[in-house]
Amino acid sequence: MKVIAEAPTTSIDVFSRYESEVRSYIRSFPTVFDRAKGARLWDAEGKEYIDFFAGAGALNYGHNNDTLKRSLVDYIGRDGITHGLDMGTQAKAEFLQVFHDIILEPRNLNYKVMFPGPTGTNSVESALKLARKVTGRSTIVSFTNAFHGMTLGSLSVTGNGFKRQGAGIPLANAVSLPYDSYLETGLDSIALLEHMLDDKGSGLELPAAVIVETVQGEGGINVAGVEWLQRLANLCREREILLIVDDVQMGCGRTGPFFSFEAVGIIPDIVCLSKSISGYGLPMALTLFQPELDAWEPGEHNGTFRGNNPAFVTGTEALRLYWRDDRLSKVTLSNEKTIRDFLMDMVESIPALHGRVRGRGMAYGLECGVPGLAEKITARAFERGLVIETSGAESEVVKLLAPLTIDSEDLHQGLAILADSAKAAAKEVI
Amino acid sequence: MKVIAEAPTTSIDVFSRYESEVRSYIRSFPTVFDRAKGARLWDAEGKEYIDFFAGAGALNYGHNNDTLKRSLVDYIGRDGITHGLDMGTQAKAEFLQVFHDIILEPRNLNYKVMFPGPTGTNSVESALKLARKVTGRSTIVSFTNAFHGMTLGSLSVTGNGFKRQGAGIPLANAVSLPYDSYLETGLDSIALLEHMLDDKGSGLELPAAVIVETVQGEGGINVAGVEWLQRLANLCREREILLIVDDVQMGCGRTGPFFSFEAVGIIPDIVCLSKSISGYGLPMALTLFQPELDAWEPGEHNGTFRGNNPAFVTGTEALRLYWRDDRLSKVTLSNEKTIRDFLMDMVESIPALHGRVRGRGMAYGLECGVPGLAEKITARAFERGLVIETSGAESEVVKLLAPLTIDSEDLHQGLAILADSAKAAAKEVI
Amino acid sequence: MKVIAEAPTTSIDVFSRYESEVRSYIRSFPTVFDRAKGARLWDAEGKEYIDFFAGAGALNYGHNNDTLKRSLVDYIGRDGITHGLDMGTQAKAEFLQVFHDIILEPRNLNYKVMFPGPTGTNSVESALKLARKVTGRSTIVSFTNAFHGMTLGSLSVTGNGFKRQGAGIPLANAVSLPYDSYLETGLDSIALLEHMLDDKGSGLELPAAVIVETVQGEGGINVAGVEWLQRLANLCREREILLIVDDVQMGCGRTGPFFSFEAVGIIPDIVCLSKSISGYGLPMALTLFQPELDAWEPGEHNGTFRGNNPAFVTGTEALRLYWRDDRLSKVTLSNEKTIRDFLMDMVESIPALHGRVRGRGMAYGLECGVPGLAEKITARAFERGLVIETSGAESEVVKLLAPLTIDSEDLHQGLAILADSAKAAAKEVI
Amino acid sequence: MKVIAEAPTTSIDVFSRYESEVRSYIRSFPTVFDRAKGARLWDAEGKEYIDFFAGAGALNYGHNNDTLKRSLVDYIGRDGITHGLDMGTQAKAEFLQVFHDIILEPRNLNYKVMFPGPTGTNSVESALKLARKVTGRSTIVSFTNAFHGMTLGSLSVTGNGFKRQGAGIPLANAVSLPYDSYLETGLDSIALLEHMLDDKGSGLELPAAVIVETVQGEGGINVAGVEWLQRLANLCREREILLIVDDVQMGCGRTGPFFSFEAVGIIPDIVCLSKSISGYGLPMALTLFQPELDAWEPGEHNGTFRGNNPAFVTGTEALRLYWRDDRLSKVTLSNEKTIRDFLMDMVESIPALHGRVRGRGMAYGLECGVPGLAEKITARAFERGLVIETSGAESEVVKLLAPLTIDSEDLHQGLAILADSAKAAAKEVI
Repeated sequence: MKVIAEAPTTSIDVFSRYESEVRSYIRSFPTVFDRAKGARLWDAEGKEYIDFFAGAGALNYGHNNDTLKRSLVDYIGRDGITHGLDMGTQAKAEFLQVFHDIILEPRNLNYKVMFPGPTGTNSVESALKLARKVTGRSTIVSFTNAFHGMTLGSLSVTGNGFKRQGAGIPLANAVSLPYDSYLETGLDSIALLEHMLDDKGSGLELPAAVIVETVQGEGGINVAGVEWLQRLANLCREREILLIVDDVQMGCGRTGPFFSFEAVGIIPDIVCLSKSISGYGLPMALTLFQPELDAWEPGEHNGTFRGNNPAFVTGTEALRLYWRDDRLSKVTLSNEKTIRDFLMDMVESIPALHGRVRGRGMAYGLECGVPGLAEKITARAFERGLVIETSGAESEVVKLLAPLTIDSEDLHQGLAILADSAKAAAKEVI
Repeated sequence: MKVIAEAPTTSIDVFSRYESEVRSYIRSFPTVFDRAKGARLWDAEGKEYIDFFAGAGALNYGHNNDTLKRSLVDYIGRDGITHGLDMGTQAKAEFLQVFHDIILEPRNLNYKVMFPGPTGTNSVESALKLARKVTGRSTIVSFTNAFHGMTLGSLSVTGNGFKRQGAGIPLANAVSLPYDSYLETGLDSIALLEHMLDDKGSGLELPAAVIVETVQGEGGINVAGVEWLQRLANLCREREILLIVDDVQMGCGRTGPFFSFEAVGIIPDIVCLSKSISGYGLPMALTLFQPELDAWEPGEHNGTFRGNNPAFVTGTEALRLYWRDDRLSKVTLSNEKTIRDFLMDMVESIPALHGRVRGRGMAYGLECGVPGLAEKITARAFERGLVIETSGAESEVVKLLAPLTIDSEDLHQGLAILADSAKAAAKEVI
Repeated sequence: MKVIAEAPTTSIDVFSRYESEVRSYIRSFPTVFDRAKGARLWDAEGKEYIDFFAGAGALNYGHNNDTLKRSLVDYIGRDGITHGLDMGTQAKAEFLQVFHDIILEPRNLNYKVMFPGPTGTNSVESALKLARKVTGRSTIVSFTNAFHGMTLGSLSVTGNGFKRQGAGIPLANAVSLPYDSYLETGLDSIALLEHMLDDKGSGLELPAAVIVETVQGEGGINVAGVEWLQRLANLCREREILLIVDDVQMGCGRTGPFFSFEAVGIIPDIVCLSKSISGYGLPMALTLFQPELDAWEPGEHNGTFRGNNPAFVTGTEALRLYWRDDRLSKVTLSNEKTIRDFLMDMVESIPALHGRVRGRGMAYGLECGVPGLAEKITARAFERGLVIETSGAESEVVKLLAPLTIDSEDLHQGLAILADSAKAAAKEVI
Repeated sequence: MKVIAEAPTTSIDVFSRYESEVRSYIRSFPTVFDRAKGARLWDAEGKEYIDFFAGAGALNYGHNNDTLKRSLVDYIGRDGITHGLDMGTQAKAEFLQVFHDIILEPRNLNYKVMFPGPTGTNSVESALKLARKVTGRSTIVSFTNAFHGMTLGSLSVTGNGFKRQGAGIPLANAVSLPYDSYLETGLDSIALLEHMLDDKGSGLELPAAVIVETVQGEGGINVAGVEWLQRLANLCREREILLIVDDVQMGCGRTGPFFSFEAVGIIPDIVCLSKSISGYGLPMALTLFQPELDAWEPGEHNGTFRGNNPAFVTGTEALRLYWRDDRLSKVTLSNEKTIRDFLMDMVESIPALHGRVRGRGMAYGLECGVPGLAEKITARAFERGLVIETSGAESEVVKLLAPLTIDSEDLHQGLAILADSAKAAAKEVI
């Protein structure tokens, strides 16, 4: 075999030439990014962007946080174990201890920790498997516009029809029921679930579990009410149905507290965590569950990259940096007010948006009542140096997901760009 | 909320206290590892181990390779994008170009590259979805003792009954047929598949795809013959069934050439790659397919950690370091001879093993004809400072999976420990 | 082999000795019936019973109608083909012609007729298969408390949890939505279905078909409103979802007109008919569908007893006898008034029943608000010489299903027994 | 509504005008049959046919047997209960007692009797449900070219791809393994099944049951060897897998003894019976199982036409007439010799058939090695007055299924027509 000469890597063309058509965000943000810090990104041309996307919630602490970076570089530098499967390592032991000490114990949460593989969908798949194993039942109840992942089990509890169709086979063993406030004409979806459980002829088998997001991020920033979630949790407890909270996107402080369900006063049986748990954007996920549910046999669920030790190192450091006290939570709730007020004003001042604002903490959505408008806004925003995406089944919601650690200047600058973009886009559709 | 004080992290107890019962390798290797380099690991007590496990194939180039490490630290140091979803980044562009230039082009392979999420099971799930989408068919043919992953789609094509049971629901849309040499009494499983395809009454629908490992790693180092694989590939082509090679464990040089199927002279329609593709043990996976199969809609399959840029950096560097020429392949084949000869001698000199040797490249197995013996051997080996696991549905095979880059001294020392351990274990069972 | 001597058949014991525990009605009606005529049955002891059960709707014209009987005996007597698979026979040709002339043509219905096997569940299975084939979709929407049959496909669209559990495997490819008036607190289930169809993130795939009973017989005599059914039909037409009306129990005049949907002013795409279609209680079923849906390949669905020619003979005769004009329909509607008024009075005069009355035509239900009471009433009724069953998922509804041809005396006598039984049973529970 | 005038029924056109395209046998036998007696049929034009089809096995005792007919007419004449759901009736009690006395007891079979609905597929569905319920497992093993019915559960264990496709959804919870003598090159399919059960990595879950036909009728008259069946039965017993024999077509004396498995010396756990069990071509089916498997709850499986009492009457009479002694069995075995010898001669004397002969009892097949030839032969036969069908997935087998009670003259005449037709058809293809 002869020595290979590489062709020069020049431009964005390399993606259209070599990468599958499945690529998506590069189409919304057509540039080649290079560096990033905090809430800012720079592309290869040096153009600067403010980040209101935060890795779809994987960068709650911003890009390349210096404290975390230091730990990471130190660890790599001293040849700390990189890849550990699920063998014991110092880095993993430390993460477990710190997660217990800083997160679980102060919240009186007594969860066992599982490393299900490094992504959210790994966590969801493991949660579904465990729920079915423990209960001996097969059905999982999920909700309209839920998003739980792209592997077959997670996809079966995901609402998005376009994603579901990608399975190529009928999805089974899951029932999709209306999320909170589903019909504008009114529908008490907890009452419906309760009635279907009581009614022996409803066609709904007693489910193994209900899986729910407290705020649906991909589904359009749909916010479940506190009472709705409490009634759901109570109903599950009464009927011995396991309650799984998928906190992959809304956990790690996104809505204010570390877990999104803390503010609601419920304690799920199983919790899925990923995205920001490593703190640095490195692949990592956890599945948490009540100790009495820990019915796994050794190795019954496994995976090569359960032990991504660099992620454990930054994850540990992130917990120490941000969660020893409630300062970050407070900042998040303060930022929420800023964001919400800004969006409310915007909606009022640009009636052509037919806009509606909703969210919790620093997960906010601006729903546009005009088809295609939200996508126009985010496109205009990108031109102006703001990275922001849409969500919802028809991409009808502009989704604000800035890093929790964004400073005030960046936040205001980003919001200003958004307002400009909205105005510009609104003009186009009038 | 008060400031949290952490409890001290001391020992292996932290895992039994906080981690789920699902943990497994820590039970076989009961220590806390700390550092690693090349083919050697050190635990927290400073005890040294030789690594014949290599992250289950994720560390083909050994631990913390200095060249790769330098690139990685540089990248992190300059605040290169860490987490990029599937946005364009310099690191990703470079990986795509280098993968094309060094791997695909010289082999006349014209694959589109998909980043399906960072693990093998993500790749397999995406392959199954694509095969079903493209063909409009639902059935996937897999083989006895196949291992393709733990998420629901991958699990349905995995043979291991213990793992399958973990699904908690019946697995569907997959048919498990006998792998090469399945029955000792003889069975031409390709003839069987062909006949079932021809026979309109066989109960086997025309499948979307056949998924196969050229060597089954987890399944017990079962080696498919060249002719068997060629006949399989021909049959698939004739019947317009897609051929998926899961090269997650056997790719990246494990059997000698970069792709395990190169030596066989077949060109799969879809290839799953993961484990060693990042070169450094970082989570990363690829799905490769013929351009005419690239029927994905943008975003039809997605996932948060598709863009683990540190892995792209080390992955690019690894390709440059090891695959510009065929030196590594040659070393692997030379090592194969050493390993095979050693094992053959061992089997002969320790008849109590009732041993059988099989493998390809640097994936070798020593099947022990005595129940429980293989696990005894690996336990004795660990005590003696060798990390080595078993495989096979009944853990009946000692699996040698040393880093490809292991030096001669480490290799021989590891083999010597193995032989000692085998002798010791054999004595226990007599 | 020696000549066999039979043991004498004496009593009801033979059933408990030889028949499976699955037997059910014999437990509610513990006697051995022997003869029957019109609306009366006699057991082996000569005890007489009035029949308010009518073979669960299979005997709309009563037992052993003399006109039908004459045709049947003539046909048998002259060695007419008994068993014809789906070969052409005189009896079948005549049935087809008469069904066309008397039933379809006058109603401007242009259905193709399929003989799917001789039972309701055969018809439902064929309807589901055809709907999936024609649309290329997999999901069927059914409703809470639906009953469509006991074979796997029909069971998957049946609501009753006890029956569903009998499948022993998870049921798939079906979604159960709320029937009309499902929640007492109000729920517009057509609006819910419409919203889920519009919402690309609802988790509800565009279904192949909706299957509905206009009145749910087994489910508890739940009556869908006219407007609800019309909105459902309109929604299906707009979205190109096939509408299947399962008229197995409510067809053949049970609610007044021949098809139960006639009064509603909707035209289903597919209709399932069975039970009373043979007129004489002989096994027979039809599946009717719009000609443009007739996408079957020859023999794609088959079955041994599709051609039960004695049933064709009596079926033809029944159509001629009862459906050349609207006299029977008028009688049914007149009887409905008698029944409804009687039940309303009963409910008022026996408050301990906590009764509610509902129904359409001669399918009426008396729901008892006290657990177990409905079963007590039917048990007391049987002692008093009235055969009447319960329905509903908790057997909470006394179900009046007298033959349409019952004479006034028998009807009043049956109602009087029912009232006595209700009083007696009500006393027991006070 | 006005009085309806019927159009005159004239001809075979009525079927193409009104009946669905799914009709099939009428295409092979394009006439309108009218009367039948013994082994002879007459069409509306008075043309006579010899019957080598026997209602696909539903008419083992020929058409309209006089003794049975007398009982039937008497029963109808005296207003015996026609339709009884699963209530107790005299006719049913008598059938149960006589079936016990004449069939079960003399064979030392201790089966409970279930009336699962009146068709073979009802019986198979009930068998699968029971097997899954009793074992708590989901998988059913079936065999290549099996035929078990057209409802969803039965279809999932049927091999025919054309029929399976009719489901419109993927079929699940069933595994199709090679039947006896599947590969001409040799394959011990029992050894394969055994190995897959032993191998924890085979991908085959421990099945609830194996369902098998001792001779596959629809599948092409494939005859399982005695030893193969015995090994299968032994394997099932050892592994506590239930053995279901589907004797729908091969039971009731078709292969000689009443049950086809008697000659093999095995005792299935569950037996499906239908077709000829009523003796007169009336819809009726039974499911038999060991008493310890009778885990049904009352009504857990039901169906309207379980109690087709006219069928019980003729079924009882048929048992008395033909099964008190072994005369019929002996005749059948004698006829077998006649048929086999004739076919062997035919194959030898018409080499262009590339014929192969196989069968057991009076179920015989002539496989033609030339595509389309078998269908040509049966078409030529029909012209010559012989009703005979093909079977096999490609309709490649002429299937001889004369009534067991055919007299010698009719048998020889039928065979002679067959030989003439084969000669004629063979000429066409040369």
